[in-house]
Amino acid sequence: MSEYRPPVDDMLFVLDRLVPTADLLALPPFAHLDRDTLAGVLEEAGRLFSETIAPLNQPGDRQGSRLQPDGVVTPDGFADAYHQFVKAGWGGAHLPVDWGGGGLPYVVGMALQEMLSSANMAFSLCPMLTQAAVESLLNFGSEEQKATYLEKLVTGVWAGTMNLSEPQAGSDLGAIRTRAVRQPDGTYRIFGSKIFITWGDHDMAENIVHLVLARTDDAAPGTKGISMFLVPKHLPGAGGGIGHRNDVTVVSIEHKLGIHASPTCVLSFGDHDGAVGYILGEEQQGMRYMFAMMNTARLGVAVEGVALTERSYQQALRFATERRQGRAPGSNEATSRIIEHPDVRRMLLTMKSHIAAMRGLLYRAAYHVDMSRHHPDEAERQRHQERVALLTPIAKAWCTDLGVEMTSVAIQIHGGMGFVEETGVAQHYRDARIAPIYEGTNGIQAVDLVTRKLPLRGGETVAEALKEVEQASARLASLDPDLAENMRAALGAVRHSVSYMLEAVPERPRDALAGAGPFLRQIAMLLAAGAMADQVLAAEDSPERATTARFFLSQVLPQSAALEPAVTAGDAALAII
Amino acid sequence: MSEYRPPVDDMLFVLDRLVPTADLLALPPFAHLDRDTLAGVLEEAGRLFSETIAPLNQPGDRQGSRLQPDGVVTPDGFADAYHQFVKAGWGGAHLPVDWGGGGLPYVVGMALQEMLSSANMAFSLCPMLTQAAVESLLNFGSEEQKATYLEKLVTGVWAGTMNLSEPQAGSDLGAIRTRAVRQPDGTYRIFGSKIFITWGDHDMAENIVHLVLARTDDAAPGTKGISMFLVPKHLPGAGGGIGHRNDVTVVSIEHKLGIHASPTCVLSFGDHDGAVGYILGEEQQGMRYMFAMMNTARLGVAVEGVALTERSYQQALRFATERRQGRAPGSNEATSRIIEHPDVRRMLLTMKSHIAAMRGLLYRAAYHVDMSRHHPDEAERQRHQERVALLTPIAKAWCTDLGVEMTSVAIQIHGGMGFVEETGVAQHYRDARIAPIYEGTNGIQAVDLVTRKLPLRGGETVAEALKEVEQASARLASLDPDLAENMRAALGAVRHSVSYMLEAVPERPRDALAGAGPFLRQIAMLLAAGAMADQVLAAEDSPERATTARFFLSQVLPQSAALEPAVTAGDAALAII
Repeated sequence: MSEYRPPVDDMLFVLDRLVPTADLLALPPFAHLDRDTLAGVLEEAGRLFSETIAPLNQPGDRQGSRLQPDGVVTPDGFADAYHQFVKAGWGGAHLPVDWGGGGLPYVVGMALQEMLSSANMAFSLCPMLTQAAVESLLNFGSEEQKATYLEKLVTGVWAGTMNLSEPQAGSDLGAIRTRAVRQPDGTYRIFGSKIFITWGDHDMAENIVHLVLARTDDAAPGTKGISMFLVPKHLPGAGGGIGHRNDVTVVSIEHKLGIHASPTCVLSFGDHDGAVGYILGEEQQGMRYMFAMMNTARLGVAVEGVALTERSYQQALRFATERRQGRAPGSNEATSRIIEHPDVRRMLLTMKSHIAAMRGLLYRAAYHVDMSRHHPDEAERQRHQERVALLTPIAKAWCTDLGVEMTSVAIQIHGGMGFVEETGVAQHYRDARIAPIYEGTNGIQAVDLVTRKLPLRGGETVAEALKEVEQASARLASLDPDLAENMRAALGAVRHSVSYMLEAVPERPRDALAGAGPFLRQIAMLLAAGAMADQVLAAEDSPERATTARFFLSQVLPQSAALEPAVTAGDAALAII
Repeated sequence: MSEYRPPVDDMLFVLDRLVPTADLLALPPFAHLDRDTLAGVLEEAGRLFSETIAPLNQPGDRQGSRLQPDGVVTPDGFADAYHQFVKAGWGGAHLPVDWGGGGLPYVVGMALQEMLSSANMAFSLCPMLTQAAVESLLNFGSEEQKATYLEKLVTGVWAGTMNLSEPQAGSDLGAIRTRAVRQPDGTYRIFGSKIFITWGDHDMAENIVHLVLARTDDAAPGTKGISMFLVPKHLPGAGGGIGHRNDVTVVSIEHKLGIHASPTCVLSFGDHDGAVGYILGEEQQGMRYMFAMMNTARLGVAVEGVALTERSYQQALRFATERRQGRAPGSNEATSRIIEHPDVRRMLLTMKSHIAAMRGLLYRAAYHVDMSRHHPDEAERQRHQERVALLTPIAKAWCTDLGVEMTSVAIQIHGGMGFVEETGVAQHYRDARIAPIYEGTNGIQAVDLVTRKLPLRGGETVAEALKEVEQASARLASLDPDLAENMRAALGAVRHSVSYMLEAVPERPRDALAGAGPFLRQIAMLLAAGAMADQVLAAEDSPERATTARFFLSQVLPQSAALEPAVTAGDAALAII
């Protein structure tokens, strides 16, 4: 059996020493909070997630969600666990108090999301999608829509979904064909088919609010003409209840490599007289709203990388501590625990150091999210918002790629047992594989990074982020000149790559895009290294944390500069495919 | 649907230009062969594998092998396909003519194994294990045993298995407890339980010959006291038929992440009065026999890495050529085939260049196998044998790790469709995951490489291999000085690592083992680069092949030297886990 132990101490280390949490708590909306309250929140949420939701992970994978005539039925225990989750208020912990949320900082919401995703990734997607819907309503909903939907969604009594993809429109949303027909009463009727709808139907929430991208008949072609609609499964009834069933049908659910408990639906809108839809904001602004929602969702997906690495690390560590095979060099025992073998230990430390590096990068990005929302100064909010924009594709792609790589390492540590499904570690490897694909493939993230994020403020946004790495390296130099030199070498290579990209994007876009993937990985390692330098400095009282961070800086980071030839090679070689 | 196209042209390029096949064909046992015969063999085998065996791959994964009261039943069509495979003589194509084999070089056998493994990895394991049993009998069987078993196994009418692991003895075979009790008639009775027995029972062959590691009662403890026994499922009957059922029972089959059609069995020997076993060679020599058998099997497993990369590459290339999403920079079309996007193209070329690099490394290793068996000069045979010994762990670990990484890239190219099981590409990713584990985990390969293979002939064996890379780099220098310089840089780093390892292994074994994994990857990339340098030189008439090899040398190889810090960091940091 695979237990999950919430890594609250590790999270608090990041919140206490790598993120300026004190600055956050000084902001007006968080003035009522203190550090111990945050710690208590993590403890309490961790308890419910590990005791109630984590044990459903493996059974949920085996049973899967199933489509029955009345809709999707989730695995045994899921609906009950969801009700407990809602009752405890975890769905809206970082959402506004005004709408029933807990009013915690986003960075704490990210820690909660990490624990939930470790406990049960398939389950965690339902609240994640709901929160994305909340975000859209908060930013773009009418007052009436807010009054009708927000509290239901913030608490999780109702759930939300994102309906973007269609068979011919996956990464390319400009190709969307779903139609929205204006009605005399100001509502719309929606007709079309959507695929890959995560938690598109289920039996956990009273109602499901679909956010649907569609096109009015007179809309511009391509992405410009797309609008966003609220299409509830049940129309809102009187007094906060639910009314008529809307014209939305589940056609099928996918048979997937992983996240079997999460129903991935094909939904049909308007098989009869059209699904009733309500315009969100204005017509033909759907892509803008979608990106606003998607950006936070992308950070949520990034968290899945660290979450599954953490979960599978815990399992691999336990296995390596119990399993005995062979005699390790220097051991007096007839057979050693496999953790005594240097090669196994290297695999464990590789996982552990990447967990620390991902968490450092992600929680810092989350700090900027909070600052971008709540800093009293408009210019500062803007500056933090740009940093979030820069970090989002980097975090999404790097952390989710690592989720795949690191869960694979966890299987390897288990040897033959890792390949047997009953062991449970293979599930993490299967579940992890979706994260580099959904919410924009990692290839799309790389394109976004070089074409839209590097040029922000004429390159100043990325330059500021690199400057912080330089400062961290300077702080580290007196304690450990070799590590600091490693950082400077990596930094030099990244700066060179950034100049290359800024020049290539407008002039030779194919060359820029040919190197975008390796560049993303290159800069991600460097930015994470900035956090690891601070971890070395901040963990003088914890040899374990200091060594974990040193390992990343000395043995992982050198791979960053070595990506340079791939970043700058251009498109020419690729032409032979 | 996923079709498989045998890459016969690519294989012939390697055999014609990267491997001294002409030298092989000059050896007495191959004097009757010529290049066109080999080409015909590949064409003909490729036809059967792609038309008959490949289409069973996905249905076989879905249906799986199942345990029924009378034993294991394979998926629909498998038994019939196996009979066609046996009838055509492919099971023994590279085995001795004297025993019913085809007498082809091992390097051709490797190409056949690659195609079979691409077509259907689960299926391919049955002949692979049978060939390992043949190898053991050829080397260590008595004349009577050879007469009884060899022709049956070489032709594949009977199948073979390797019975090593027990619950407490996976990587650590010294912990084996299965007992062998001597009988007055010179036979033994075997009692014990074996796990993870690939194709441990099935309905495809008339009989199954289990090679079983066990311990006689008075044997030395640990690995020294292990003997190897032939334990047929049915005792051999008169006139080449089968006699009584032996006391061997299938207890269960594993529910695995991949290779569902390959029954992985728990076998119980001697539940009644003991399974009749025949000693192979001498008592307490089992480990030596096992390693002899295992070494060839390890090269066979290495081939799975390139085989699944090739199969999933073909599928990803087809998808990328058909699927349209977005508009690629420089395109005039409204939506481009996704292959036009530089990022997708990079993924495809990454796969293609690794296929070429793996094939170059592997087929060269196979050439050394042939030379080690058939060169007229004893000293030369020995020299080639040492090279095989060096290359085996390198090829096994590197190619199987790449199999996992590259099938993951193939999923990524498919986007959301890659995560849906019906697409078929996810199966390759699941199947590939076993290869870094079985036949000695990749961690074990790295230990073997640094502790046993580097020290061969005082380091001369590895020095010779590196010398050949240096020569390839020198040949390349006039054509492309930059690429040659890349190679020299990587070579310098590897030579430094080798010196470090040769010194550390006897003095500071934990330090050596702590860097063994990264070292294996470091040297593997360099040795493959040697083949790719020759591909650049030999492919002046094929820009596609030249560019593929250049991509590896310019954009992949720089990662090799960057592993140096990890290779030489030592064990100290690891102590914190």
